[in-house]
Amino acid sequence: MSGFHGLFVPGPTNMPYQVRAAMDIPLEDQRAPDFPAFTLPLFRDLKKVFKTEKGQVFIFPSSGTGGWEASITNTLSPGDKVLIATFGQFSLLWADLAKRHGLIVDVIEREWGEGFPVEIAEQKLRADTKHEIKAVLVCHNETTTGVTSNIAAVREALDATKHPALLMADGVSSIASIDFRMDEWGVDVAVSGSQKGFMLPTGLAILAVSQKALEAHKTAKCPKCFFDFADMIRTNKDGFFPYTPATTLMRGLRASIDMILAEGLDNVFARHQRLGHAARLAVAAWGLKLCAKDPKWHSNTVTAICVPTGFNSDDVVKTAYYRYRMSLGIGLNKVAGKVFRIGHIGHFNEIMMLQAIAGIEMALMDVGIPIQAGSGVAAAQQHFRQTVPQMQFFKVA
Amino acid sequence: MSGFHGLFVPGPTNMPYQVRAAMDIPLEDQRAPDFPAFTLPLFRDLKKVFKTEKGQVFIFPSSGTGGWEASITNTLSPGDKVLIATFGQFSLLWADLAKRHGLIVDVIEREWGEGFPVEIAEQKLRADTKHEIKAVLVCHNETTTGVTSNIAAVREALDATKHPALLMADGVSSIASIDFRMDEWGVDVAVSGSQKGFMLPTGLAILAVSQKALEAHKTAKCPKCFFDFADMIRTNKDGFFPYTPATTLMRGLRASIDMILAEGLDNVFARHQRLGHAARLAVAAWGLKLCAKDPKWHSNTVTAICVPTGFNSDDVVKTAYYRYRMSLGIGLNKVAGKVFRIGHIGHFNEIMMLQAIAGIEMALMDVGIPIQAGSGVAAAQQHFRQTVPQMQFFKVA
Amino acid sequence: MSGFHGLFVPGPTNMPYQVRAAMDIPLEDQRAPDFPAFTLPLFRDLKKVFKTEKGQVFIFPSSGTGGWEASITNTLSPGDKVLIATFGQFSLLWADLAKRHGLIVDVIEREWGEGFPVEIAEQKLRADTKHEIKAVLVCHNETTTGVTSNIAAVREALDATKHPALLMADGVSSIASIDFRMDEWGVDVAVSGSQKGFMLPTGLAILAVSQKALEAHKTAKCPKCFFDFADMIRTNKDGFFPYTPATTLMRGLRASIDMILAEGLDNVFARHQRLGHAARLAVAAWGLKLCAKDPKWHSNTVTAICVPTGFNSDDVVKTAYYRYRMSLGIGLNKVAGKVFRIGHIGHFNEIMMLQAIAGIEMALMDVGIPIQAGSGVAAAQQHFRQTVPQMQFFKVA
Amino acid sequence: MSGFHGLFVPGPTNMPYQVRAAMDIPLEDQRAPDFPAFTLPLFRDLKKVFKTEKGQVFIFPSSGTGGWEASITNTLSPGDKVLIATFGQFSLLWADLAKRHGLIVDVIEREWGEGFPVEIAEQKLRADTKHEIKAVLVCHNETTTGVTSNIAAVREALDATKHPALLMADGVSSIASIDFRMDEWGVDVAVSGSQKGFMLPTGLAILAVSQKALEAHKTAKCPKCFFDFADMIRTNKDGFFPYTPATTLMRGLRASIDMILAEGLDNVFARHQRLGHAARLAVAAWGLKLCAKDPKWHSNTVTAICVPTGFNSDDVVKTAYYRYRMSLGIGLNKVAGKVFRIGHIGHFNEIMMLQAIAGIEMALMDVGIPIQAGSGVAAAQQHFRQTVPQMQFFKVA
Repeated sequence: MSGFHGLFVPGPTNMPYQVRAAMDIPLEDQRAPDFPAFTLPLFRDLKKVFKTEKGQVFIFPSSGTGGWEASITNTLSPGDKVLIATFGQFSLLWADLAKRHGLIVDVIEREWGEGFPVEIAEQKLRADTKHEIKAVLVCHNETTTGVTSNIAAVREALDATKHPALLMADGVSSIASIDFRMDEWGVDVAVSGSQKGFMLPTGLAILAVSQKALEAHKTAKCPKCFFDFADMIRTNKDGFFPYTPATTLMRGLRASIDMILAEGLDNVFARHQRLGHAARLAVAAWGLKLCAKDPKWHSNTVTAICVPTGFNSDDVVKTAYYRYRMSLGIGLNKVAGKVFRIGHIGHFNEIMMLQAIAGIEMALMDVGIPIQAGSGVAAAQQHFRQTVPQMQFFKVA
Repeated sequence: MSGFHGLFVPGPTNMPYQVRAAMDIPLEDQRAPDFPAFTLPLFRDLKKVFKTEKGQVFIFPSSGTGGWEASITNTLSPGDKVLIATFGQFSLLWADLAKRHGLIVDVIEREWGEGFPVEIAEQKLRADTKHEIKAVLVCHNETTTGVTSNIAAVREALDATKHPALLMADGVSSIASIDFRMDEWGVDVAVSGSQKGFMLPTGLAILAVSQKALEAHKTAKCPKCFFDFADMIRTNKDGFFPYTPATTLMRGLRASIDMILAEGLDNVFARHQRLGHAARLAVAAWGLKLCAKDPKWHSNTVTAICVPTGFNSDDVVKTAYYRYRMSLGIGLNKVAGKVFRIGHIGHFNEIMMLQAIAGIEMALMDVGIPIQAGSGVAAAQQHFRQTVPQMQFFKVA
Repeated sequence: MSGFHGLFVPGPTNMPYQVRAAMDIPLEDQRAPDFPAFTLPLFRDLKKVFKTEKGQVFIFPSSGTGGWEASITNTLSPGDKVLIATFGQFSLLWADLAKRHGLIVDVIEREWGEGFPVEIAEQKLRADTKHEIKAVLVCHNETTTGVTSNIAAVREALDATKHPALLMADGVSSIASIDFRMDEWGVDVAVSGSQKGFMLPTGLAILAVSQKALEAHKTAKCPKCFFDFADMIRTNKDGFFPYTPATTLMRGLRASIDMILAEGLDNVFARHQRLGHAARLAVAAWGLKLCAKDPKWHSNTVTAICVPTGFNSDDVVKTAYYRYRMSLGIGLNKVAGKVFRIGHIGHFNEIMMLQAIAGIEMALMDVGIPIQAGSGVAAAQQHFRQTVPQMQFFKVA
Repeated sequence: MSGFHGLFVPGPTNMPYQVRAAMDIPLEDQRAPDFPAFTLPLFRDLKKVFKTEKGQVFIFPSSGTGGWEASITNTLSPGDKVLIATFGQFSLLWADLAKRHGLIVDVIEREWGEGFPVEIAEQKLRADTKHEIKAVLVCHNETTTGVTSNIAAVREALDATKHPALLMADGVSSIASIDFRMDEWGVDVAVSGSQKGFMLPTGLAILAVSQKALEAHKTAKCPKCFFDFADMIRTNKDGFFPYTPATTLMRGLRASIDMILAEGLDNVFARHQRLGHAARLAVAAWGLKLCAKDPKWHSNTVTAICVPTGFNSDDVVKTAYYRYRMSLGIGLNKVAGKVFRIGHIGHFNEIMMLQAIAGIEMALMDVGIPIQAGSGVAAAQQHFRQTVPQMQFFKVA
């Protein structure tokens, strides 16, 4: 079929050709004597993206789910209690993973569309005078519902209650796209993956881990080997790995980090803010509702949109896919059939957002949802015209 | 900069990744004993795209301009008279090229925005009782103005006047995108290039030549060597070339032809018709005027749009480029500053057209041209919703 | 630096450009409705490479080490006893991994350079009348020493002793290169990775699992989530995955399997046999010794060569790397400094082997090991001239 | 078929993956406002490779043959006399091209295997008191026979005779690989192509032209348009082109020039010297004869080798191709069947040369030519061990 397929799912994301080209290389020997000349600066610069100076980064040939597993098994022991709130498919799965590794999981269930309930968590922390809670797990950006939670506030709750629990953040769909500050927020384990803000194919779990969490690692008893920090710490310090690393993806990661740092993290965040706001204006212009229940939770990397009662969101997604050649995110689990999602994360710009909106409008009308043609586009255009820097000079690379 | 840059010029066009991947290969020996197993089927299938069974195709490492030179120098002699109409930059340049090779060029000058004046040409042919006119040169699709001329009508004029002149067509921005029928229309030399409907990088002049033109070649006296059909004829018949051919582009051409034939030429033409019509509906919705002066000349591969008096079309193009990261075609020569162009040729689909329209709307408003936001998008959406096949099943390749 | 770097390590291997090109694509939505049209045939054809009809394949975004972890945690419970022999770095690491997951590991330690001691294992199995041994772990091809063990004989030992233990094989550096017959040999879990015989970048753990092992999975109590077969079984049957799969590598795997099956598994094995034999002839011509202590254990994918006393194999590897731009495998752990290795696995042919040998000869002479220049090359040439099929017709792809 | 095919023809050459990756990009608008930011530095750095400060470079979407045509038609007029010596297929073809463009070609025919006969040329120049000879055409490196001629000596002859003729050099298989000094040697037109020392796919004719030749251009009357310097001069000065340039290849050229300048031209020349010398030592070890008749003409980019009487060199080439998967250059025209060639130009290093030699040895023995196995390899190894810099540190890129 002719023409480019539109990829508007919240990961895997659109990949810059510079990143693709950086991976279009022969394989290489990970035991080469000059391999550390590549890896050591990569570790160093990767820390900048997490905004951590004190933490240590880890790169596993895996995925975000593997990153969760690494976060749990490396810092906790079977029988340890963790506090988590579930309000979407991914917070749910992380809780489930913790359970399957033998942890006692104290779940605060929230409606899907809400974010992390800091006040409830603070109450629980305050009540936990024996400090049985060993870790608080926060899904920073719940990809199912387009909800971003406030991690700084969770840190404040921990501090306010003087609770020593580790603070772990699932930043798979936030890090490198939405403001994330490891050191400032006192995050102990931050989990990310390659196929979101890092604009790479799936295949890397990327973690940043605080010294406090590394201390906890020394006594953590969850069985592990593939994801064991210890083997990584021992070999990474010289630039090597305990087993064959995914060198190709790591070459891509080098290119990706270079692009992110060249644009500047603050500019990256501002761009996602601009894109996310435009998406929400389009939804408002259509007269539809977001899945996110409050503006404070609006995500700038994914917009989840409710279809009106009587319609099935899968029909929107399938129409967009088959008729107009674009991929949207489907509704998952509890919101299956009720929600469709626009991913606008990573390598994304204004005309890509307009394309997504314009294509969605056709699909919405096709399935019979009454919206005004072009209305979402006009709303987003208005926002872009006001916010895109004037005559933003750049080189076509 | 993040996000894909939009390429909406009338060539070079958007390149399918299948074509790109087909060229992402090591170099190869063009004298390999099994090289003909690649080239001979390529020649065969390339003829299908020109809709010729009797003609012969030629592939030069060159460009469309080189294709013009090949058409002239191989079939004509200095002092020969040719008839051509000029109504845009490319018809003008072809006439100029003919002059520089020593031909007497009988030019019918038309306003830019008009197409080939068949009736005037017919009068001239009828008057040319001595058959001094050796060739009629028709620019099938004038890329400057978005004007498609009627080649079948020129053939009818030649037939009606029983004139033996060769019929040559510049199909650089039409072949493989707009209906073109070499044998049926009695075209003697059809010129194309790699970077338009063939969806490849610039670098190939692609010609199809009738037996009548090959006969003329035997006595043509224009000096030539690089573009000489004779060397090609002698070596191509065994699958080889007189000098190193551009094998990489030819591997891409194989992929491109495979895609075109898999979609089906008629479907390709229908898609371009759908895209072109949508572009024109958007222009109408904006209240702007096309450069093409009559619907019969509307091009389905490029839409040239006049800015209102008092505005400079270059400002639209630059705003789109720098502020919104998309390339539009500028106005050339006589229409510089007056016209901007949307290329919608080759690897192009509905959501790409909506993206172009949406981006242009922002640029138009930015420079102060009064249009209604989203109006062009809505007009195009309406057309697409009515014409895109229902639930067109396809594989994401 | 100019010219291609020679990659002669036993993985990552040389990657065919067809495989590279298959991965040089945009990212894709793993929830697309037609994604199963890609994955289901991939699962089907992958089974052919393992020579299993009854087993089930699993593809994890991970590496061979992750494959080991999946094999252990999915089929066994903490406290279970497993029998393993260690005779190199990789058999050692697999044993270590089993220990770290809480298993009781009955280790038969052998000299490095020997293979799996079937007779000793058979004695142990026979003595294990209570069937406490739940699994026998065999490293099919020990990459450290260039030793291939006899898995069919282990199956015979299990059968002879009527022992119900699972038979697990580490086939990371054998499968798709050396004869491997899952069903015929009664292998219950076969572990492989992407970066060896599958000629891909690191990033996939690839397993084939028998029905018997899948039955054991139902009661296996090792904690697991990322590597849990259950989630894969549930989703793979419809062509989907429990979390984002490494689609890019899987597209490469499709190309890789296509190449392997087009060449024919038997031809692939014969080619590796030819390459391995030539390498050993070269070593003999140099007057050096193999690390493998008996011809029955000679590996056809990796040749480990002992340097004479008084020399350091690292000097050979470094000289080859820095002076002649080629990567050889270093000696690991117990054989560090004593052994260097030639990987000749996957996308490898006769002239690549001659290049490796010729380059090694220079490095050997440079470090002062007395060999006759060209002697290894001549020995390998002789073997190739006798065994490469006459006028093997092929297309340069 | 598995394993890399060996490409040992004298162009197209082996392409560095950095160059390939630089071309693995979307197409771009050659009228973009920032396009000159790419092209102007490209022109500047390209001049460095020609070692010219005063000359002007031209890049045509064409091939070396097109470069010849540009050199002739831009500087001469029909009826002009040129002096050329023919001693191989390419000098022959250039003479033929000049004839076909209406020049009077004074041909000094030499045996194939000899180089440019400076003394004879000097006599002719001295005798040409009316200065009817407008240009002397020298094939710097005759690819057919592996012969490099002495351009500096031709310049001396021109100077000694105070002859004003232009000095034109065909440097297609020399420039960027063998010492070439445009300004110092007073070369007026230097012709090259993309697929040799520039390590790119075929598709660019690359010329450097002196001010004297540009002056001649103003009155040159050979018809031209596609190759007209005038259109290039007018548009290149602002970084643009008169028609669509081959932007993809030009992006590759940028990468190629960067690699050449990073290695350093002198190092590039030394490397080719080392490779060429090793090839000749191998030929000597085999007891075979070079086609080049005198050491002063030995080419460092291509080695042409005579097979003994009674043998057909095509059999060697076909055996190497089909049986051992490597491409060698065949004998052309007068030396067809008598000569085969090794191209060692561009992206080439020592282990590639050893691979070529080792493979050729097998093919020679297969067709019955009596040589000693490994003898050529040993001779080349010896030379490399003596001349490759000790512990040449580099990064695997």
